Amino acid sequence: MKGIVVFSGSAHPELADEICDHLGLRRSGVKISRFSNDCLQAQLLANCRQRDVYIVQPLVPPTQEHLMELLLMIDAARGASAGQITAVIPHYAYARSDKKDASRISIGGKLVADMLATAGVDRVLTMNLHAPQVHGFFSVPVDHLTALGVIADHYRDKDLTNCVVVSPDLGNAKQATLLSRLLNLPVAAGSKQRKADDKVVIDAIVGDVQGKRAIVLDDEIATGGSIVEIVRALQDFGAAEVSVACTHGLFTGNAVEKLMGTDAIKEIVSTNTVPAPKNFPGLTCLSVAQLFASAIDRIHNGRSVSKLFDNVDPTHAPPPQPEGLF
Amino acid sequence: MKGIVVFSGSAHPELADEICDHLGLRRSGVKISRFSNDCLQAQLLANCRQRDVYIVQPLVPPTQEHLMELLLMIDAARGASAGQITAVIPHYAYARSDKKDASRISIGGKLVADMLATAGVDRVLTMNLHAPQVHGFFSVPVDHLTALGVIADHYRDKDLTNCVVVSPDLGNAKQATLLSRLLNLPVAAGSKQRKADDKVVIDAIVGDVQGKRAIVLDDEIATGGSIVEIVRALQDFGAAEVSVACTHGLFTGNAVEKLMGTDAIKEIVSTNTVPAPKNFPGLTCLSVAQLFASAIDRIHNGRSVSKLFDNVDPTHAPPPQPEGLF
Amino acid sequence: MKGIVVFSGSAHPELADEICDHLGLRRSGVKISRFSNDCLQAQLLANCRQRDVYIVQPLVPPTQEHLMELLLMIDAARGASAGQITAVIPHYAYARSDKKDASRISIGGKLVADMLATAGVDRVLTMNLHAPQVHGFFSVPVDHLTALGVIADHYRDKDLTNCVVVSPDLGNAKQATLLSRLLNLPVAAGSKQRKADDKVVIDAIVGDVQGKRAIVLDDEIATGGSIVEIVRALQDFGAAEVSVACTHGLFTGNAVEKLMGTDAIKEIVSTNTVPAPKNFPGLTCLSVAQLFASAIDRIHNGRSVSKLFDNVDPTHAPPPQPEGLF
Amino acid sequence: MKGIVVFSGSAHPELADEICDHLGLRRSGVKISRFSNDCLQAQLLANCRQRDVYIVQPLVPPTQEHLMELLLMIDAARGASAGQITAVIPHYAYARSDKKDASRISIGGKLVADMLATAGVDRVLTMNLHAPQVHGFFSVPVDHLTALGVIADHYRDKDLTNCVVVSPDLGNAKQATLLSRLLNLPVAAGSKQRKADDKVVIDAIVGDVQGKRAIVLDDEIATGGSIVEIVRALQDFGAAEVSVACTHGLFTGNAVEKLMGTDAIKEIVSTNTVPAPKNFPGLTCLSVAQLFASAIDRIHNGRSVSKLFDNVDPTHAPPPQPEGLF
Amino acid sequence: MKGIVVFSGSAHPELADEICDHLGLRRSGVKISRFSNDCLQAQLLANCRQRDVYIVQPLVPPTQEHLMELLLMIDAARGASAGQITAVIPHYAYARSDKKDASRISIGGKLVADMLATAGVDRVLTMNLHAPQVHGFFSVPVDHLTALGVIADHYRDKDLTNCVVVSPDLGNAKQATLLSRLLNLPVAAGSKQRKADDKVVIDAIVGDVQGKRAIVLDDEIATGGSIVEIVRALQDFGAAEVSVACTHGLFTGNAVEKLMGTDAIKEIVSTNTVPAPKNFPGLTCLSVAQLFASAIDRIHNGRSVSKLFDNVDPTHAPPPQPEGLF
Amino acid sequence: MKGIVVFSGSAHPELADEICDHLGLRRSGVKISRFSNDCLQAQLLANCRQRDVYIVQPLVPPTQEHLMELLLMIDAARGASAGQITAVIPHYAYARSDKKDASRISIGGKLVADMLATAGVDRVLTMNLHAPQVHGFFSVPVDHLTALGVIADHYRDKDLTNCVVVSPDLGNAKQATLLSRLLNLPVAAGSKQRKADDKVVIDAIVGDVQGKRAIVLDDEIATGGSIVEIVRALQDFGAAEVSVACTHGLFTGNAVEKLMGTDAIKEIVSTNTVPAPKNFPGLTCLSVAQLFASAIDRIHNGRSVSKLFDNVDPTHAPPPQPEGLF
Repeated sequence: MKGIVVFSGSAHPELADEICDHLGLRRSGVKISRFSNDCLQAQLLANCRQRDVYIVQPLVPPTQEHLMELLLMIDAARGASAGQITAVIPHYAYARSDKKDASRISIGGKLVADMLATAGVDRVLTMNLHAPQVHGFFSVPVDHLTALGVIADHYRDKDLTNCVVVSPDLGNAKQATLLSRLLNLPVAAGSKQRKADDKVVIDAIVGDVQGKRAIVLDDEIATGGSIVEIVRALQDFGAAEVSVACTHGLFTGNAVEKLMGTDAIKEIVSTNTVPAPKNFPGLTCLSVAQLFASAIDRIHNGRSVSKLFDNVDPTHAPPPQPEGLF
Repeated sequence: MKGIVVFSGSAHPELADEICDHLGLRRSGVKISRFSNDCLQAQLLANCRQRDVYIVQPLVPPTQEHLMELLLMIDAARGASAGQITAVIPHYAYARSDKKDASRISIGGKLVADMLATAGVDRVLTMNLHAPQVHGFFSVPVDHLTALGVIADHYRDKDLTNCVVVSPDLGNAKQATLLSRLLNLPVAAGSKQRKADDKVVIDAIVGDVQGKRAIVLDDEIATGGSIVEIVRALQDFGAAEVSVACTHGLFTGNAVEKLMGTDAIKEIVSTNTVPAPKNFPGLTCLSVAQLFASAIDRIHNGRSVSKLFDNVDPTHAPPPQPEGLF
Repeated sequence: MKGIVVFSGSAHPELADEICDHLGLRRSGVKISRFSNDCLQAQLLANCRQRDVYIVQPLVPPTQEHLMELLLMIDAARGASAGQITAVIPHYAYARSDKKDASRISIGGKLVADMLATAGVDRVLTMNLHAPQVHGFFSVPVDHLTALGVIADHYRDKDLTNCVVVSPDLGNAKQATLLSRLLNLPVAAGSKQRKADDKVVIDAIVGDVQGKRAIVLDDEIATGGSIVEIVRALQDFGAAEVSVACTHGLFTGNAVEKLMGTDAIKEIVSTNTVPAPKNFPGLTCLSVAQLFASAIDRIHNGRSVSKLFDNVDPTHAPPPQPEGLF
Repeated sequence: MKGIVVFSGSAHPELADEICDHLGLRRSGVKISRFSNDCLQAQLLANCRQRDVYIVQPLVPPTQEHLMELLLMIDAARGASAGQITAVIPHYAYARSDKKDASRISIGGKLVADMLATAGVDRVLTMNLHAPQVHGFFSVPVDHLTALGVIADHYRDKDLTNCVVVSPDLGNAKQATLLSRLLNLPVAAGSKQRKADDKVVIDAIVGDVQGKRAIVLDDEIATGGSIVEIVRALQDFGAAEVSVACTHGLFTGNAVEKLMGTDAIKEIVSTNTVPAPKNFPGLTCLSVAQLFASAIDRIHNGRSVSKLFDNVDPTHAPPPQPEGLF
Repeated sequence: MKGIVVFSGSAHPELADEICDHLGLRRSGVKISRFSNDCLQAQLLANCRQRDVYIVQPLVPPTQEHLMELLLMIDAARGASAGQITAVIPHYAYARSDKKDASRISIGGKLVADMLATAGVDRVLTMNLHAPQVHGFFSVPVDHLTALGVIADHYRDKDLTNCVVVSPDLGNAKQATLLSRLLNLPVAAGSKQRKADDKVVIDAIVGDVQGKRAIVLDDEIATGGSIVEIVRALQDFGAAEVSVACTHGLFTGNAVEKLMGTDAIKEIVSTNTVPAPKNFPGLTCLSVAQLFASAIDRIHNGRSVSKLFDNVDPTHAPPPQPEGLF
Repeated sequence: MKGIVVFSGSAHPELADEICDHLGLRRSGVKISRFSNDCLQAQLLANCRQRDVYIVQPLVPPTQEHLMELLLMIDAARGASAGQITAVIPHYAYARSDKKDASRISIGGKLVADMLATAGVDRVLTMNLHAPQVHGFFSVPVDHLTALGVIADHYRDKDLTNCVVVSPDLGNAKQATLLSRLLNLPVAAGSKQRKADDKVVIDAIVGDVQGKRAIVLDDEIATGGSIVEIVRALQDFGAAEVSVACTHGLFTGNAVEKLMGTDAIKEIVSTNTVPAPKNFPGLTCLSVAQLFASAIDRIHNGRSVSKLFDNVDPTHAPPPQPEGLF
């Protein structure tokens, strides 16, 4: 297969550019046209023939527009005889629709996975899926990265005295537990009840947070409702101050105001899997571009992607050396 | 198979209601939810098991939103064990993206057809596709209706003295020719050059229009650009006045103003495959609900849909009786 | 479609017979042959043509044998022109292999779902999947039943004074929470760490269990390791006595001895989704045959299956009546 | 992928040989056997393993025989572990069956496209499809070449004084328009009514042809009926003499006599996408072998095929350089 | 599903008519058109919607033409919303291409099976496949009839004194063995070596034929070469006279002359799965129309097709009653 | 594609090791885990990305366990982005279930072929399929090796005076015929009637065996029943002594005792496509590891596999040089 070609839809060209910088190549152009009847069309402006094509597009609002752009770019790349097409979807937002938690509902996470395959994708490269089972929705190989190492590195540079890592949801505390091990800190978790899509109630904190500085870790922050809730609960249970970290910082609706208006929050950390909101001075945005670039480079050159996560997260790291064979 | 269940997305519930009225049943409910990260979810509020399910959704702006709603409703119906799922897409707007007229572009009309099949549709019921070849993009059966009879009926009630049917595009004059036959009128056509998506130049009129009253027929009116162009050309060639008719009257952008500001246009006729714009007093909107209801009734009861078009359009009508067999 | 035909593999013919009793019909025969090279072959001994075929086979040990039997029976039914084939898999054991929690591992839950589709199944009827996301692994419709109502009915007949419902795993406490609501009891949960496939460590109990009688609810009991663990933890935290309930009571290895040797356990309740072990006098086995029979009857007659779960579990029950349409 | 291997069915081995000459390699052998019950079998006489295999076969009469040969050769190549299989179909004759222009008819163009995919083809390389939408019938990538440049080059060498390019069908005048631009000539077109498969009536000529020398351009000439018709119309409208050009010169039935008996025709030009008829001295046959060879070479080496058509036809040429990215 | 509709291609309309007579209905018309470029098109002249459609077409010479007709009719029926499409292929000639008996050859029997599925067939109804394994090439259900009972009935009416059933090929003697049991006769077989497609050498007869009257049974007679060969061998081994019976009597090439010129042959019996040759006075043609009609009737009404073959051939007959279940 | 990686399931790691020795590389590790509910999981312990992956697993008892291991390893390799996955199945035991020889039975040979494709295999490498038609059950390319040369070489070293090659089944005598040609010996065959899966009756021997030393050749020996039968028949017909050879020596049940207790058998020869039984001193086990290694090497390097069988078996050898092209 010939060299790497990177395209970007309109969702997050800055991340694509940064990935390209790390790869030492220039992002190739795409012309997205909108017909007068609101239908979209994609034209790829670089030769794809036998190329190892990567199309960068997180599913951020307006989500349906960005999804359709992505599907059309994949279709165009397939028609242009791309050697291999990898959809780089740093935030696969439809993963939140992952189960039939009511009768006769759609499972969007599965449907979109199938649509990507229909359009002609050969592989998906993504980060921190909402539930690990979503991996199984895809019929094509998925390279599933974790931002955990990047977030851990951020905190390693700081004074971690008297800190505790907190998961907002005890039922989903695996990432927080891993972060606590990487930082050599204790862990705690909110016992959270989701009442509706953007409404949660936390009625207990498991683990000791009294007088501690909490590092709250979540995968996605949208309206910020559940973060504000856990922060309040932490305060109720005596936590001194809070640093909030997440992988996918969408900050939709009035999330920025809500979070900035919560005094206990001393720091908000996100990665750039999605574009950072303008006018959010308090946000520390960590780049995952290097990770994606390394993954692309390893995919292209047939080297292990799991090697990237040695000593980070055993789920993503390569298996230990075999001691013997049957 | 059990009885008919009709659902509607948010694109055009009025048409769905009107179809249901003709069928003598009540439209069933759908709950479309939007997650805080802008992902959509559909829940069908009526039992679909073994039912003959029809989901009404023309692809009108915001097109991507409506397309995703449709796909999610199909997915939900399949998961709910629908007996048969028919996507009723009165306006299949992506049909305009039907060929590779530039290198490395997407063919949206084919991709969306494939996506509908992926979601689980069993049949598509649509009207006046932009090009007849788009029928071949679908792997599922397509029932392709024509609005020609409805439009012809509208004009039959009028004084047709000195009238001529005009196609804006000689290269696509089949519908106009058929209408002229139904109305027993002569036909003419603009020789049209499309310069860009919403920019056309008409440099000639084939057929005699001098002093005549023109009935201009097109399949879709979006920004109205090509209609204004043909009307000017007709004036240049001496036409007295113009009536404009189309199947899919989207009237996007400032189409309403443009058309209302063109004095030569005495009447604008459209069907309700798409919602009529508010504040367009000059518009005569013909209903195709009866046609869709009849087609649904015939599909459900295993009767010929082509019978609906006897004496209208030979393309859609049933074949003539066989005279003999080999 | 013609009438219902029920077949059973060798995994659990007793359940199939009981389902047939409720349906008022006789189970049809299957001849499973084993070639001298250990390959299996299935022959269906009743006419399947246009019939609504149900094949009952939970995936219990020897799991691979039972899985292959099931696939061969589906293949035979398809070849015999069955009208519709439903795999009735009361315990879909491969659901435990639902994610890539280490690199380069198989996702058996997805693979087996795909294999069932390849063999020709049209629908899967199952109960209490290990994770709700596994639903999304299937490309065919899944009717997912819950045993919660059956288990609740068991306890409703008892003295529930001073009782608490306990989930062994706070991260998976949804079922326990629902049961507590049905029984009007408080809920508690162990904070559980899974170290290996059959080794768990519970280091905390969330919720008050001091002096209470605990009803521990789990989805599957295999070796019984995690149950013994939670019972010990409950004792440590002062619980008075324990009743253990689960949907899928496999009781593999020395589970029976382990559980019978734990004095604090006053009762063990399971359902018959899988065959009950011989020589387990302490086991109360609740039948789900009526539920499966009702589901089959409703599937066959096109009535809502979710209706079965009104007032039981909102996930499975039908959606509330729509108040209005857009 | 290893080197190029070129096979040919029995439809047009001369073209395959000529393509091979340009590529500097020898055509590999195929043994087509006919069983005594008239079934065909193909055996490839060269190693295909990991090879980049090209199978040359235009769909010319006897069309069904040649189609089946092609499908069997593709099947054999797939079974022989070809690295990539490209069906080189210089004339995809089934493209004429591209729409449902009557009810309950087959769409052969789509069916044959699906059959090629079923047989195992990875790509189709073709030339001048009857309608551009036929591209969308294929689920595999299509490289669609144009003969326009070759035809233009033929005329560039001639005296073009007082010439006009004429399309027999105004509704399909795009190719003629492009040729007129390449030759810097005016364009005209017949307004054509197709009455039956091989019967057309031309009742008008759009554009000035009085006293001019016409270059008539069509995509396929079969029985020659529509060519004779346009030539007569041109004579009626005062054209001085006519040169006829087409891509696919089948000349079936008594086409040769008909055309040679039309005095106004001074020259007939075709390409060798299909074998030229014997005993047609008046025919100028232009070779497209070089174009196909270049396309194959570019496909094999991962270079842009659209580059071949820079300054020829914007549909096939590469997109203009991007001016900027979003 | 609505009623039965029977179509026929041009291969054998007489058989289709006879089947229709037995079913008490009229064959529906098909219009097969040939474009001037030799491409075919099929139009079905009767409503197919929800109908149980049967398309009768044995694969007889010109085989490719008839195959393409069949595929196009299936495509048209699918597009016309047929409820179920059964290809009735009384002679599936491509079954002879069933294995890779040389490297890099096509397996036409599998390819054509896949093509039928691609065109949209739901079931295949056929008779006496060349090898029973060919059944496994189809992904759709196959109802595989046997002509054995019809042939046995023919001989039951005769004097069978001193008769022996002979298979030309000991390696394929199953049918002859079954016939001998039905007629209560001994069996013998030629030990046959196939040197080429239409050339066989028989060098031994297993079983006693000295002074006996032989009934030679084969599945297909094409050029008659192997029949003449076995007859000669039978004469060499002392057989008195020969009756020849086959299912598929194609009699291609100069088979009729060859067979009529072989004095030892007293009778030639075939069925009408394929059209009988004109001018073959010696041929006794047995009708299988009743069998096909019964099979169609049973398929349509969901009754067992294997019941048709009770006491004929255990392969096709229903399984014996189960004695007990596990 | 990057280099070769060879994995082995638990069925026959010794063969995999031997193949690796010939290839000059080390077998890579696989961790097969068994959940406490008897479900299996596979983890590949070497990087597969872009690698040419070979998974060695003959389908030997416990067959279902080994089949599931194989499917899970394929699934894991696909998920790990293997470049190409070849299932090396030296003994494809399910080939014995290759036809519908009774109504409503499964065709396991086809089903397992489809399951392998579903799991993600790209190619199957196997040896001596029970029937050559089974090749056609696979939709992926199959490289079908023959052990005939290896067996011939074994006998070439011996005194072959007065020897005859014997096929137990005249109906399946092709392999014996080929061996007789390679050894320049006469051939004979038993006329065999299979009464049940492991019960056969041989009532005649075709060819002269009186006083000769017989070399009996079969493809698979399971319980040894048919071998003992042919040996007895050979003794009845006067054969002096017998050497027994087969490709797949499973020796299940009490085969070893049965064969060792048959005095006429002087030698038993098998290959190592399956593990040799312990405690079978009389067995001569020929290795096919070199053949498999050569095939893998040729597949990897794009060289002809059929070349391996020049002068062995014309079915597997490359076609003769073409003398000319059409």
